[in-house]
Amino acid sequence: MSLFLDAAWGKFTERAPVWMMRQAGRYLPEYRAIKEKSSFWEMCRTPELACEITLQPVRRLGVDAAILFQDIMTPLPPMGIDISFNPGPVIKEPLRSPTQIEALRLPEKAEIAPFVAEAIKLIRQESPVPLIGFGGAPLTLATYLIQGGGSKDYAEFRQFLRYDPQAAHALLDKLTELSIRYLSMQVEAGAEAIQLFDSWAGLHSAPMYAEFAKPYNQRIFAALAAYKVPRLYIAVEAAHLYPEINQLDCEVVSIDWRLPIYQVRSQLAEKTIQGNLDPAILLAPKEVITQETKRVLEEGLGGAHIFNLGHGIFRQTDPDHAKHMIDTVKSFDRVKAKGLVLK
Amino acid sequence: MSLFLDAAWGKFTERAPVWMMRQAGRYLPEYRAIKEKSSFWEMCRTPELACEITLQPVRRLGVDAAILFQDIMTPLPPMGIDISFNPGPVIKEPLRSPTQIEALRLPEKAEIAPFVAEAIKLIRQESPVPLIGFGGAPLTLATYLIQGGGSKDYAEFRQFLRYDPQAAHALLDKLTELSIRYLSMQVEAGAEAIQLFDSWAGLHSAPMYAEFAKPYNQRIFAALAAYKVPRLYIAVEAAHLYPEINQLDCEVVSIDWRLPIYQVRSQLAEKTIQGNLDPAILLAPKEVITQETKRVLEEGLGGAHIFNLGHGIFRQTDPDHAKHMIDTVKSFDRVKAKGLVLK
Repeated sequence: MSLFLDAAWGKFTERAPVWMMRQAGRYLPEYRAIKEKSSFWEMCRTPELACEITLQPVRRLGVDAAILFQDIMTPLPPMGIDISFNPGPVIKEPLRSPTQIEALRLPEKAEIAPFVAEAIKLIRQESPVPLIGFGGAPLTLATYLIQGGGSKDYAEFRQFLRYDPQAAHALLDKLTELSIRYLSMQVEAGAEAIQLFDSWAGLHSAPMYAEFAKPYNQRIFAALAAYKVPRLYIAVEAAHLYPEINQLDCEVVSIDWRLPIYQVRSQLAEKTIQGNLDPAILLAPKEVITQETKRVLEEGLGGAHIFNLGHGIFRQTDPDHAKHMIDTVKSFDRVKAKGLVLK
Repeated sequence: MSLFLDAAWGKFTERAPVWMMRQAGRYLPEYRAIKEKSSFWEMCRTPELACEITLQPVRRLGVDAAILFQDIMTPLPPMGIDISFNPGPVIKEPLRSPTQIEALRLPEKAEIAPFVAEAIKLIRQESPVPLIGFGGAPLTLATYLIQGGGSKDYAEFRQFLRYDPQAAHALLDKLTELSIRYLSMQVEAGAEAIQLFDSWAGLHSAPMYAEFAKPYNQRIFAALAAYKVPRLYIAVEAAHLYPEINQLDCEVVSIDWRLPIYQVRSQLAEKTIQGNLDPAILLAPKEVITQETKRVLEEGLGGAHIFNLGHGIFRQTDPDHAKHMIDTVKSFDRVKAKGLVLK
């Protein structure tokens, strides 16, 4: 077992494993070099490129886990949805009617994204660290499909939930089944953990989350249980939802930087906490990075902890600053620190 | 005294007073008619126009309070800052150095925005309901001035706070003094309550809020105390900050739709709660509006309550839907409902 998997399964590890959300991305010059020559969909759909990009931060930074380079939109085009990137996702025909939702195909597991299975096999041959697969949570996928792209307030989506909850549930049901097929395929191809990204769940109140998010997330986690890989969950700006999220059948919950880990732990009992350095800190001088990284490590001493950022790394980040954070995490002895803290 | 002022001062009123954030705005055809002929700055700087726009929702919807039509950017140009709207604020030269911050002028009270004083006097002559004045909280103003405009993650601003906290404090100090002058002027001209908008405070963790927001907000509230007008505060996506916000010396705290009022009340002891209908609900069918409005009213029965939206009204909103919500609030007898609920 690896440090990452140990911690994901709830073990208090000697040191915290560390990786970063969006670690395979635009802040790395070697990523930008590939991006100059290929479109975003080409990068996702060419297994050799997806493998190379996935491994870039592993090589340069020595993170303890690799996360598959893909987008949460990856499994959606085979449903019959036209998606481009500019740079965020743009849905050519936003879903606004029950007829459009009924017309969506439910592709077979093998046809959703065969290139992802290929990429995963290549990565597993080369990666010295565990590979995390991932997908978007149904509510978050539906947010984009109904709104049509990114938005400040997602008014059209929130209106749809209130106007036609039945159609919304029909869409969420289809997206759940699609996600189960897509994520199972990833594990069968070799992914050693799965993270479900519920990026927009935090927009909603707890009763709305309980109706439109939780049951679908739960179905996905239940379907993945048979594979015995750790299941990770992230929702951003979701402090008000922790009592709901705690009921999810997953091993790890990723939290943003808004609340310190020790304050969240009691609300997320028995989960491994992943997080939660403010990504803005990687833009600060190195002494601030050292100090804030140690603070997060100390706040995480109450149980199993996977060190990560509270949100994706900013593209403005100097890779040397990320490396400095990772080295700081690696040099922090949790057993010793816990002794010191407890005395 | 009015219903609005009674509730703001902490009284359990027979019915909840109601107004809406951004009630003077783009969802109203009579607002759009003015907007077609005038630029945004012209609308702010022409007292007759600002007065007319402020009163439009009072006439059409029968809200229990008027809120001054202005922008939180209004007091900043006299400091020497070039701001345009497109449609959000665009700062021509974002503040990124201590030299730029030192160079900012601190205008006298009378020269900051004489047109605002004029507008307030006109409104007070015509308005049948109390007038709320407002301003941006120093941290939120600094967010725009340093970032240069709206942003998804405000990376440059958050970097600045970490890189040069001393310069950030110097800027916050100037903005605090400016705000005290600007808001005092509003009350002297006739504003009967003041709301401080801290739109971006929720981006930060509690320790960051305690360092960069709370002391400045507190100074403003302390300066306003002498005027004996109720002081209202709003931060969005700020559930994690309520223990800090509770320490502010203000009478009313506005909360977004993420948590029900009864759950927030214990964290905001002795404050009047303002809120918190999800603005997306005004896009739903009228029966959903009735039901959700009543739910919020019932959730607010634990103490003083000013009914409002959890965020600004969406521009897509049908004014008849807003009217329906307001009428629902007006027909809800809190004393009777509390009896029913308590039995």
